[in-house]
Amino acid sequence: MRSTQDGSGRRGLTRRGLLSVAGAGAALVGGSAAAGYAVGHEPEPGARPDQPAGRAYPFHGPHQAGIVTPAQDRLHFAAFDVTTDDRRKLVRLLERWTRAAERMVRGEPAGTGGTSYDAPPDDTGEAIGLPPAGLTITFGFGPTLFRTDDGIDRFGLADRKPASLARLPHFSGDMLEPARSDGDLCVQACADDPQVAVHAVRNLARIAFGTASVRWSQLGFGRTSSTSTAQDTPRNLFGFKDGTANLKAEEAAELDSHLWVPAGRETAADWLAGGTFLVARRINMHIETWDRAPLREQELLIGRSKAEGAPLSGGGEFATADFTLAGRGGKPLIDSGSHVSVAHPDHNGGVRMLRRGYNFVDGSTGLGRLDAGLFFLAFVTDPATHYIPMQTRMQSQDRLVEYLRHTGSGLWAIPPGVAPGGFIGETLLS
Amino acid sequence: MRSTQDGSGRRGLTRRGLLSVAGAGAALVGGSAAAGYAVGHEPEPGARPDQPAGRAYPFHGPHQAGIVTPAQDRLHFAAFDVTTDDRRKLVRLLERWTRAAERMVRGEPAGTGGTSYDAPPDDTGEAIGLPPAGLTITFGFGPTLFRTDDGIDRFGLADRKPASLARLPHFSGDMLEPARSDGDLCVQACADDPQVAVHAVRNLARIAFGTASVRWSQLGFGRTSSTSTAQDTPRNLFGFKDGTANLKAEEAAELDSHLWVPAGRETAADWLAGGTFLVARRINMHIETWDRAPLREQELLIGRSKAEGAPLSGGGEFATADFTLAGRGGKPLIDSGSHVSVAHPDHNGGVRMLRRGYNFVDGSTGLGRLDAGLFFLAFVTDPATHYIPMQTRMQSQDRLVEYLRHTGSGLWAIPPGVAPGGFIGETLLS
Repeated sequence: MRSTQDGSGRRGLTRRGLLSVAGAGAALVGGSAAAGYAVGHEPEPGARPDQPAGRAYPFHGPHQAGIVTPAQDRLHFAAFDVTTDDRRKLVRLLERWTRAAERMVRGEPAGTGGTSYDAPPDDTGEAIGLPPAGLTITFGFGPTLFRTDDGIDRFGLADRKPASLARLPHFSGDMLEPARSDGDLCVQACADDPQVAVHAVRNLARIAFGTASVRWSQLGFGRTSSTSTAQDTPRNLFGFKDGTANLKAEEAAELDSHLWVPAGRETAADWLAGGTFLVARRINMHIETWDRAPLREQELLIGRSKAEGAPLSGGGEFATADFTLAGRGGKPLIDSGSHVSVAHPDHNGGVRMLRRGYNFVDGSTGLGRLDAGLFFLAFVTDPATHYIPMQTRMQSQDRLVEYLRHTGSGLWAIPPGVAPGGFIGETLLS
Repeated sequence: MRSTQDGSGRRGLTRRGLLSVAGAGAALVGGSAAAGYAVGHEPEPGARPDQPAGRAYPFHGPHQAGIVTPAQDRLHFAAFDVTTDDRRKLVRLLERWTRAAERMVRGEPAGTGGTSYDAPPDDTGEAIGLPPAGLTITFGFGPTLFRTDDGIDRFGLADRKPASLARLPHFSGDMLEPARSDGDLCVQACADDPQVAVHAVRNLARIAFGTASVRWSQLGFGRTSSTSTAQDTPRNLFGFKDGTANLKAEEAAELDSHLWVPAGRETAADWLAGGTFLVARRINMHIETWDRAPLREQELLIGRSKAEGAPLSGGGEFATADFTLAGRGGKPLIDSGSHVSVAHPDHNGGVRMLRRGYNFVDGSTGLGRLDAGLFFLAFVTDPATHYIPMQTRMQSQDRLVEYLRHTGSGLWAIPPGVAPGGFIGETLLS
C-alpha cells in the first residue's frame, strides 16, 4: 500500500495516486472504523507537461477560471435551485464547493478522505485514476437567488442585485422549457475528459444535498468556440466553423471592454467587479432539414464557405468580411440576412461576446430526429448591451433562425475569482 | 488551394486535408455548378503513430470491427426503423451504409465529394479537420426486420431469423420505455472523439432518409469495460472499476466459445456464422442514493474494494475471487448477494460475455436527479444461454438491483464482417 500521509508536492498531482484506502485490509477483516479514502502524492507516472490530459488550471485568481481559459473539449453544465432560506447554509455550501473545486481541478478527489467505512465516501470515485484533464469549474448566481419569482428576498441580497441580472426577455421564436431554464446557481464544468466534468458536477450535487438540488443539467461533447488564438476553430453541427471572430484571451483591452464588469459601474453591485455575466441558451438545430439544404443555401445563410470558413467576400478564414463587395448582378457576396452579417460587431454597435458553447446530442425526439444542437454559452460585461439587442436583431433578420429553436435559457452573474482561503461569492456574502 | 486529385496513399489519411472545395472561388463568383467537396491527401501534419486520435481501424475482416476492437472512449448508438417494404431499397441502404462506413473509419468524409453546389453536401461537415479517432461502426439486425410485431414478413426474411433473435423477455424490475427500446437496425459508433462518433451516426441517418429513420439514440461518454488486456479497467458511475473479468480480445479460444456464432448451429441462419448477438440495456442508476450509502455497504454490494477493485476475499484487482473464504463471524468475505458473486461465471454455468458498455448522463430528471447510469452493451454467441439466465438470476439475487432501473432494451443479430466490395448483411440479403 502506498504511503499517503505526505502532503508535499500537492500542486499538479493527479488522481492516479488515489489507488489505496488507508487501513483497508484491517477494516475489512477487523471492522475498524478508521479507514477511508486517502490521496497519494506520487507524481503521475509518465506525465508530460505537454499532454493535454495532464494539464491543470489554477482555481485561484482575480477572475474565475473557465472563462478565458482555452475552451476545453467537453462540458457538463448544471443549474441548481437552493432549497433552504438560511443564508448561513448558503454560505457554507459555497465554502464547501470552493474547497472541493480547488481539489478537483488539481486532479484530486472532491473530499479530503479519511472518512469512515461506515460513512458515505467523500468522493464518488468514478474519476479515480484520471488526470486533471484541464478541468475548470465556474460558478454563477441567478436572479432568483436575489429575489424569488414570488418576490421573496430569502437571503437579504435583493438590494445588491445587479440591474441587468433579470430573466432574459421573450424573444420571437422562443420555445423555452422551464425544466431546461433558469436556476438560483449555475456550475459550468469544462474538461478534456467528459468523465472528469461529470464527476465534478456530480460531487458538487452530492455536497449540496439538503441545501441545493439540480434543477437541470446539460452535457456538451464538442466545443464550438476558440477562446485563444492558439486554438483551431472548431465546427458546430451545421458543419461550419464557429466562433472565428470570437473574443479571445489574448485581446486584453477588448476583454476589459466586453467581458469583465468594471468596478464602480453600480455601487450596490460592486461585488461583481472583476466578474461577468453568463448567458446560456439551449438551441436545437433542425439538422435533418439542414442536411437536405443545398451547399449553396447553407453557405448563403451562414455567409462563409463550409470547407474553409472564409467569408464569402473572399480571402481565408480570418479575412475581414466585406459586406459591400458585390458579385454578379450587383448583389453583395455576403447576404445581408446571413448569420455572419447579422451577428457582426459592425452591425451591433461594436459589441463582442466571449462565446464558449458546445455541441450537444441528447438522444432523439419521438419524430425520428436527433435532439441536437448548440448549447450556447456567452460571457459578457452586460447582457443588456451585449446580448439582448443582438439576439433581438437575429430573431428578426437572421435567415438561419428557421433552422433553430431555442429550448432553454438562463442568465447568471459570475462573481470574480477568489484568493486561496476565500470562497466563491465572498464579495457578495461575507 | 490544395491539390485534391491524387488518389494515392488513401489509407490512414484523415479529414485534416479536407479544407478545400474544388473550384470554390470560381463557383462563388461565377456561379459554376461543378464544385463540391473533395478530399485532400496530405499526411496529417504532426501526426504520430502512437497518438490515439490518429488511430484508424480497418473496416473489413471476417468479423465486424467495434466488437473485440479495444473499447474506445465514446459512443453514439442509434436504432433505426426501416420505413420501406421494398427489399431492394433495404439492400441499397446497406450498400450505401457500407461504403460510407468504409470512408468514415479512415477519417474521410461520408461521401465521395464532387457534388454540386446546388445539391446537399454528401458529408455534413462537422468532422472536417478531425482525425479518424479510432472510429468503428458496427451494424445489427433486430427481430422486427425479419417479422414485424404484426407478423408481417416485409422482406422475405422470416424463415432465416435465428431462433434466439426475439425480443428479450420481461425481467422483474424492468421499466422499459418503448422510445428507448428495440429497432429494425442498429448502429454502434465508437470513437475516441465524440464528435467523430456523432458525425458517423448523423451521416448514416442522412443517407437513410426515405428508407429508415432513427427510432432512438444514446450517447455514452465513458467506456465501462476493457476489451483488451492492454487497457486499464475503467470505472462506472458507482465509482467502481467495471469489467475486470471481461472477455478480452486476446482470449481466442474463449471468443469462439462465448462470442462468435459458429457455422452449422442453425442451417437457416447460417448467414450469421462469424457474427454475434448484441444485447443493449439502458440501466439508470440511482446515483444520489448510492452516494449516500456508506463505503462499507457499497463494497458489500459490489463484492470488490472501491479504491483498487480487488475482490473482498483479498489480493489485487485481478486476483481470483474466493467465494468461500470467511472473515470474522464465519461469514464469507464476499457476500453471496454481491454483484461479483451473482454475475460470476462459476455461478452461471461458465458463461462469459464481451461487455462494451458506456456511462451516460442525459441531463436530469424533473426530480432534481441526474438521469445517469450505464448503457450496457454485451456481445454474446447466444442470448438464450449467455444473457437471459444471468439477467434473470441477477434480478432475483443481486442486491445491487435496488439501485438500478432498466429503462431501455434491445437485441440485434450482428452479421459477420465483409471483404472489400461486399456489403454488411450480404450473407443474408444477396
